[in-house]
Amino acid sequence: MANTSTKRTVARGKKFQLQPRLRIRFSEAVAFGPGKADLLELILQTGSIRQAAQKMEMSYMRAWSLVREMNRHFREPVIVAERGGRNRGGTQLTATGRRIIGLYRRMEQSSLKAAGPDWNKMQKLLRG
Amino acid sequence: MANTSTKRTVARGKKFQLQPRLRIRFSEAVAFGPGKADLLELILQTGSIRQAAQKMEMSYMRAWSLVREMNRHFREPVIVAERGGRNRGGTQLTATGRRIIGLYRRMEQSSLKAAGPDWNKMQKLLRG
Repeated sequence: MANTSTKRTVARGKKFQLQPRLRIRFSEAVAFGPGKADLLELILQTGSIRQAAQKMEMSYMRAWSLVREMNRHFREPVIVAERGGRNRGGTQLTATGRRIIGLYRRMEQSSLKAAGPDWNKMQKLLRG
Repeated sequence: MANTSTKRTVARGKKFQLQPRLRIRFSEAVAFGPGKADLLELILQTGSIRQAAQKMEMSYMRAWSLVREMNRHFREPVIVAERGGRNRGGTQLTATGRRIIGLYRRMEQSSLKAAGPDWNKMQKLLRG
């Protein structure tokens, strides 16, 4: 799986890294989380569900299934097909899709920053 | 798996819940995270690796394997056998073990609190 969120959100310690993996749960289901965030971001970057799926080493079917889950949990669709439909055209994030990514990445950053003081203490307990 | 961390750290929205699953990674390995935190806490509560494992619906072997992983990554052991050794006596957390739990739970709380403002915004995008 592509590790774009890791690259962004990891606080580098000596060798240890803190990763805030935020999950939005809907009873047992995960409505949104690190995997779906990476997928949306890759669709934004590539303009293609197929290419995003490839980069995450998941099947096209799986990527579509994740997109459908997001569309079910959010009020508005997260992507829209452009120019020529699903087969020939590209795929763009909707305003809602872009907003979700922005909020999620900022929540990760806020989490990481807030955990910082205790993370420094924790690192002293870890082997150096 | 016992969901003690869920009960503690979830911010309840209408139906959606935000869960900060903090991972301490050591390259590809997870040195500490939600599962190990729950296990340590259950050992603290029950005084027994076997009972903690049962509550988490994991095998005794698996629980010991997680304890060994923690002991490898932290400078000091996280548990100590008391009165009569591994077979007859109980198991206590060491001061380090208790410190790890305390720091980890506080990091979860700080994360959740820090993510709060954007989480409120995110909930408006989710189906009510």
